[in-house]
Amino acid sequence: MPEEARLTTRVEIWTDINCPFCYLGKARFEEALAGFDHRDDIEVVHRSFELDPGLPAGETGPVIPRIAAKYGISVEQAAANERAIGAQAAQLGLPYQTTGRDYGNSFDMHRLLHFALEQGKQDAVLDALYAGNFAEPEPVFADTERLVALAVRAGLDEAAVRAVLADPDAYADAVRQDEREATQLGATGVPFFVFDNKYAVSGAQPTEVFTHALTTAWNDRPAPLVITAESDGETCGPDGCKI
Amino acid sequence: MPEEARLTTRVEIWTDINCPFCYLGKARFEEALAGFDHRDDIEVVHRSFELDPGLPAGETGPVIPRIAAKYGISVEQAAANERAIGAQAAQLGLPYQTTGRDYGNSFDMHRLLHFALEQGKQDAVLDALYAGNFAEPEPVFADTERLVALAVRAGLDEAAVRAVLADPDAYADAVRQDEREATQLGATGVPFFVFDNKYAVSGAQPTEVFTHALTTAWNDRPAPLVITAESDGETCGPDGCKI
Repeated sequence: MPEEARLTTRVEIWTDINCPFCYLGKARFEEALAGFDHRDDIEVVHRSFELDPGLPAGETGPVIPRIAAKYGISVEQAAANERAIGAQAAQLGLPYQTTGRDYGNSFDMHRLLHFALEQGKQDAVLDALYAGNFAEPEPVFADTERLVALAVRAGLDEAAVRAVLADPDAYADAVRQDEREATQLGATGVPFFVFDNKYAVSGAQPTEVFTHALTTAWNDRPAPLVITAESDGETCGPDGCKI
Repeated sequence: MPEEARLTTRVEIWTDINCPFCYLGKARFEEALAGFDHRDDIEVVHRSFELDPGLPAGETGPVIPRIAAKYGISVEQAAANERAIGAQAAQLGLPYQTTGRDYGNSFDMHRLLHFALEQGKQDAVLDALYAGNFAEPEPVFADTERLVALAVRAGLDEAAVRAVLADPDAYADAVRQDEREATQLGATGVPFFVFDNKYAVSGAQPTEVFTHALTTAWNDRPAPLVITAESDGETCGPDGCKI
């Protein structure tokens, strides 16, 4: 029977590679985590949220004219927004290209992030995808070779990555399940952080908001399991079945 | 921001295909679930626990002499134990072959169950594996073709199943992660049922114990997320990024 409390706090972060505030929010969360006493007992999982799931898989292009056209603002305003985000990134020491990033369908990237989770490399792969999109001039959307290169840079096996990308069903259900869960939780935008299914932080908040959330969740972390029957039922273990 | 409670209760069941009480426990849990008012809001996930992880992958044989030798009991006693389990199975209307089942390494089956979870067919695959081991004369261990047949019977795609079985790394980490978590939770035998990370049932308990656990967990299901900051941070959503 369990005798110790479950010691970790689990943080789930819904995110999209198209989302600059997800890139910034991750850095702020990590700043809070680095200063948190119990950081080694915090488990982080990245979950999928597509900003624009209806976008055809092959469509990509520069983000500034796209934003201007889609939201009915001027190209100048869209470019100014990018510069404003770039200034915030600079304060965090994050590289950000304010004129060169593209937009595109991120479904394959999310599938890859689920594969990477299994491989214990999800965080590194997300960092590589963010860097590829926000900090490096080469396009990352609709370009399998670029995606493979980023994934391999993060430590994934090349053949395995190609196999995942070549099979459109691989991890597709896992992506959709994440998105359904985001809807159930009421998340309409990202980044969206959930601590132990109990506390939430919406958006790229200041570092101290994440520190507060980590502290609150840690202090209220799940109690030991409550065994609901007086006696154990029949079980099998390494030493055989107790009959 | 989330405005509704998370409505589901999540039940995680650690299990092994070698474990007759897991087979019985699943049936009793399902009996309780079938009679539970909120059954459509109960999410069930099967998790991995190998009774004998050190067993070489190719080793298999009849279970009765194996149990007798391993636990130092007579073959007659081991056979009587099987008949006692068979009698319990009969009370549940479950087919059980009291003389013919085998033992073997179940790692590949657990990998397959993780793949099946992604495909939305985990429960059906586990039922097929249990039926194969406990109710049908053909061996299920160390026999890829038999495993493929059982998985396909449960609705999985044959080529995909073969690909998972052919790649020893596929879902291997997921199996080991489940086993680590079982250890953290203090589970030394299976079946082990965990309700919303909060309540546990150890063993193939009577149906009413599961009914009680379902009711307790449902009545104490997680509250709506608590948003930990007064205002939303910067987010991106389907309508663009709020700057």
